[in-house]
Amino acid sequence: VLVRPPDVILPSRASIDRAKIELERRLGPSKVLTGEDACGAYANDDSDVEGRRADVVVIAASAEDVAATLAIAEACEVPVTPRAGGTGRTGGAVPVAGGIVLATHAIARIKEIDRANLVAVVEPGVVTGVLHAEVEREGLFYAPDPNSLDSCMIGGNLGENAGGPRALKYGVTSDWVLGLEACLVGGRVLRTGKRTVKGVTGYDVTALLVGSEGTLAVFTEATLRLMPKPPGIATALALFVDVRAAAAAVGAIVAAGVIPRCLEMLDAATLAAVRGAGVAVDERAQGMLLIEVDGESAESALLRVGEVVSASAGLVDIVVAQDGTQRDRLWAARRMLSKATRKLARHKLSEDVVVPRTKIVDLLERTDEIGEATRVRHLTYGHAGDGNLHVNFLWDHDEERPAVDRAIEMLMRATVKLGGTLTGEHGIGVSKAPFLAFEQSEELIGIQKQIKDVFDPKGLLNPGKIFASRGHAGC
Amino acid sequence: VLVRPPDVILPSRASIDRAKIELERRLGPSKVLTGEDACGAYANDDSDVEGRRADVVVIAASAEDVAATLAIAEACEVPVTPRAGGTGRTGGAVPVAGGIVLATHAIARIKEIDRANLVAVVEPGVVTGVLHAEVEREGLFYAPDPNSLDSCMIGGNLGENAGGPRALKYGVTSDWVLGLEACLVGGRVLRTGKRTVKGVTGYDVTALLVGSEGTLAVFTEATLRLMPKPPGIATALALFVDVRAAAAAVGAIVAAGVIPRCLEMLDAATLAAVRGAGVAVDERAQGMLLIEVDGESAESALLRVGEVVSASAGLVDIVVAQDGTQRDRLWAARRMLSKATRKLARHKLSEDVVVPRTKIVDLLERTDEIGEATRVRHLTYGHAGDGNLHVNFLWDHDEERPAVDRAIEMLMRATVKLGGTLTGEHGIGVSKAPFLAFEQSEELIGIQKQIKDVFDPKGLLNPGKIFASRGHAGC
Repeated sequence: VLVRPPDVILPSRASIDRAKIELERRLGPSKVLTGEDACGAYANDDSDVEGRRADVVVIAASAEDVAATLAIAEACEVPVTPRAGGTGRTGGAVPVAGGIVLATHAIARIKEIDRANLVAVVEPGVVTGVLHAEVEREGLFYAPDPNSLDSCMIGGNLGENAGGPRALKYGVTSDWVLGLEACLVGGRVLRTGKRTVKGVTGYDVTALLVGSEGTLAVFTEATLRLMPKPPGIATALALFVDVRAAAAAVGAIVAAGVIPRCLEMLDAATLAAVRGAGVAVDERAQGMLLIEVDGESAESALLRVGEVVSASAGLVDIVVAQDGTQRDRLWAARRMLSKATRKLARHKLSEDVVVPRTKIVDLLERTDEIGEATRVRHLTYGHAGDGNLHVNFLWDHDEERPAVDRAIEMLMRATVKLGGTLTGEHGIGVSKAPFLAFEQSEELIGIQKQIKDVFDPKGLLNPGKIFASRGHAGC
Repeated sequence: VLVRPPDVILPSRASIDRAKIELERRLGPSKVLTGEDACGAYANDDSDVEGRRADVVVIAASAEDVAATLAIAEACEVPVTPRAGGTGRTGGAVPVAGGIVLATHAIARIKEIDRANLVAVVEPGVVTGVLHAEVEREGLFYAPDPNSLDSCMIGGNLGENAGGPRALKYGVTSDWVLGLEACLVGGRVLRTGKRTVKGVTGYDVTALLVGSEGTLAVFTEATLRLMPKPPGIATALALFVDVRAAAAAVGAIVAAGVIPRCLEMLDAATLAAVRGAGVAVDERAQGMLLIEVDGESAESALLRVGEVVSASAGLVDIVVAQDGTQRDRLWAARRMLSKATRKLARHKLSEDVVVPRTKIVDLLERTDEIGEATRVRHLTYGHAGDGNLHVNFLWDHDEERPAVDRAIEMLMRATVKLGGTLTGEHGIGVSKAPFLAFEQSEELIGIQKQIKDVFDPKGLLNPGKIFASRGHAGC
């Protein structure tokens, strides 16, 4: 019941053998894994995309190792799948054409935290949560907070342009990247961007590379923007009679001129899963908002949110965290959602569509209709403040999978029809490649493929991703 | 004493004649200006770049006119220089290869202000200050505020990725653009991006187009992000014994965890110009900071700034604006700087280099050394909070120009050596094209030229800009 790998051209046996020999010669045997078990360990990510097991895994220890690997890949015409934390949701790090997996998790230094200039220089293997802790120790703040922050890595965050709950106020990864060091197929190293907040020299190649899903270059270093850590945080949990009432409250909060740093929503089915995981939630509640504001006036901002929410139709209860422990408890429920809901069925797929904030209720209605039409169970939670919702489809039996695929396709079409976008933070990868043309014109897709050709004319870097069709490059 | 136009290939007389006939046929004669006076009126911008007068000026009234013009330009192989407000500082809107000037100032509707989704849809001819007023009337906020906001237009802001004082806290134009409609040479229309804050479908072509200085596409519509208007503003003016003391205070303010929305600095020579324009400034002051904070806790944030500044060495005085009138008065001095300093000499060139915040003092020292070495008068003011400084060179006699050119080149080299960037908000255009390789590697420049080729293979769109060498595309 996995997503089948796309139809890509596989490297020849001779090419692979030549690449293996060259890699071992240049990098030494300890960084070059060729055993079945080793290659199998790097064949998946946190999606259900089925890979074609790589022939060789390179555990790069430095930017030089990355460059050497990409030089050999070009010389031998062997495809390369870059990989950092391997926590992606759309198959970005899954090798679908065999060849080389280029793992960057061991290039993992925080090279610099420059407090005065509010800049950090980091390597791709740094775990996002570790970076948070390190900069916060200095009174600083790096906002992007994907749910997998305890295991995902900056390299993957850059590749997928990762978001997270705090994106509502602080934006996604690309908003925090000032410059990059990236290696191209063939081994050339590109330094892009700047170390200053402002800087408009030439085209914004940095922004082009962030979110390119490992198809243009492999990151070896990033210069990240930091900010002073917001002084105050205030968190509240509001319970509603249904998720529509919760969605209406989202609009009312923003209309009141408050942009919370997080504004998370849970629907009835998600709340049932939370209760099932042992968290006590008022039984009358069939919709929930988790609201977090920050800044020097966090307390007064939360008071204003409280007033707005209290005036909302369908409110069951509102709870304000009185201290850090209570805040952690409120967040624990949100953070464990991905795992708690996974227990509801043998299989689960979490989409990350985005619609304009005013279309959230419409999207929920469309999702219900899709569930009825396809008879696929579903639940929805996510970053309601920015309209980025994780619609989850659940099923137990393999024979249900075609219905799930139908449901996903219907969801993608409905999202685009509502003025939304296929993906807010997971990327297109393999999973959503068939739907790209729902959102983007032939013109725009064509331009992107030509840009891909500029960076990777042989189509060797992360083939089969973003663009769904035949060829090394998936072009 | 103008910057000579770059060495570009000029269109043939026959091509131009054919284009004129086609344009008049498709657009009607009223939108197609061919007189010498009319073409002369569109030959300059707010830089000293000397143009080669266009052969025809198209006053586009719609996206369709833009598409038709770009189709004819390709068919006839005539270069096109796009233009909106014509207020640029590096020659971006100056035709340097003759051909067509494509003016978009008349495509000027604010098509939509969507309060609930915090989105505006605007056309390229909208004056930035008009957009500010319109969204603020709805309690909303669009942050980018280039100094020329009363005359510059969104189309040009997009092309140059314009900044302004508020960029320190709120970022530059690209941080506010969600999606674009842009027309390519040949007339194809590209819609990029999204209407939601999040959205990572495919490459970030939107970010690639913003700041591409009219060399990749002509904007016909932009979907912009808005935010609720910050509820409070508090403004102070601090005077120091010298500009080094002012620069040190900048670092201290940021170290205290406050990010003002603006943090503007004026050096002694600039203050002299301000006094010369009739503004009374304490004679002991040889350096000044204009500090503005906003948000619900603006008052308390300014108090904190006041404490930090009061503890700074070299403080002469600090004045807090007590009301809007006083605030306007403080800002008036800053806003008129560009004009006031222009009176100091017959000629003035304002650079917009950026260095890391901690390198501001070094840059000021380098600038003094450059002034001494070249005997060119200079003054410096600008957005000190983000290290973006307007170093101005002044001269009266044409024979001084070679020394000015030497000074500019030395400044560019010094900036890059300090870890900075050539341009924070004016773009490269014609003026800085010779210095591009000071900052960027051959690899990076090469990739950008290849990207240019993807969008404009014949090199017809805004030739001679960014990349300094021969050919229609300046490649």
